[in-house]
Amino acid sequence: MTVTEALKKRRAIKEYDPEFVIPKEDIVQLFAKTLLSPSSFNLQHWRFAAVVDPAVKARLCEAAWGQRHISEASLVVVLAGNLDAAESAAEYWRHAPERVQEKLVPQIGRFYANNDRLKRDEAIRSASLAAMSLMLVATEMGYQTCPMIGFDFEKASEIVALPDGWIPVMMITVGRGTREPHPRAGQLRVEDVAFWNSFAGEPVK
Amino acid sequence: MTVTEALKKRRAIKEYDPEFVIPKEDIVQLFAKTLLSPSSFNLQHWRFAAVVDPAVKARLCEAAWGQRHISEASLVVVLAGNLDAAESAAEYWRHAPERVQEKLVPQIGRFYANNDRLKRDEAIRSASLAAMSLMLVATEMGYQTCPMIGFDFEKASEIVALPDGWIPVMMITVGRGTREPHPRAGQLRVEDVAFWNSFAGEPVK
Repeated sequence: MTVTEALKKRRAIKEYDPEFVIPKEDIVQLFAKTLLSPSSFNLQHWRFAAVVDPAVKARLCEAAWGQRHISEASLVVVLAGNLDAAESAAEYWRHAPERVQEKLVPQIGRFYANNDRLKRDEAIRSASLAAMSLMLVATEMGYQTCPMIGFDFEKASEIVALPDGWIPVMMITVGRGTREPHPRAGQLRVEDVAFWNSFAGEPVK
Repeated sequence: MTVTEALKKRRAIKEYDPEFVIPKEDIVQLFAKTLLSPSSFNLQHWRFAAVVDPAVKARLCEAAWGQRHISEASLVVVLAGNLDAAESAAEYWRHAPERVQEKLVPQIGRFYANNDRLKRDEAIRSASLAAMSLMLVATEMGYQTCPMIGFDFEKASEIVALPDGWIPVMMITVGRGTREPHPRAGQLRVEDVAFWNSFAGEPVK
């Protein structure tokens, strides 16, 4: 499936066949392809809980005020971001030439040191890049998805035993959808959101 | 180009043909497809400055401590996020059935009210989803890209006249690359980042 087709086909679907089970190999493939996403300084802030256990899904459903698709989708991905990724920079650059490592690793440390807001922004930013890839890959594999931030982040963190230093970024349900998407609700056009050379510039169209 | 091929082919490229000019139609297409990305409550937080003017690129290059690819890429996208998107929820849901609008629009208002951290998280999250789509679409169109957060956000905001209430999220250079990517620097494997049912669970592999 082309990128363009996947972008068109991907829509938030909240109705799933509750009997359908995603093969484990597909889940591994889904993550393997998602990991090809870029991240700031290659820090790969993304972490994933792959929830397939009905009991855990039921608890996550409760933490999302009863949104049923969380129980009914075959896979619920709880996507988290690592706030302390910069501390592992040496690992993430281990295959780079030595002179690159020597320069870059301490530079990354300084860039994030004592900047909690930047660490949080970064965890959300990189994990969200992965989220988009994951949804497009799932679409290409013939699945439907729904990205969600409407849930109790604290409760969900407890349920999936989120470690200290990681923050929840999103949940994504993945499964076999049972209905067509609703029409799009009110999309902005290119000229509403893109401007030439500066935000004070002419609209792009 | 399939989603999988685009994910494999997309790598950060910092060397571009400075003579190459992306056709305007391609830029419009690039944004049009990017806008098919999902966003929290369809709030479409993403905004784009499409910088093609060499003088503006030169200033952005300076704000990124002289990283030359900003001047040499045909297009530099400054991606911003709208912190106040929830205030326009009625517009973004105008095509939904009336009973959906009546319930959802005030609900969205309450969800974000007085929560500045959530507004910031959301602007970064949604804009980053769009960023990933933009890079994959550009790849499919035969271009190379480089996502960047290593620049002076304040200076860049001034240069592109970022309005109050919008925050910079990322820059992405787009152009005709002139060299092959470096080998990947040290990627985590699926089993390093994905776990069954909870982050305390068995690694996915």
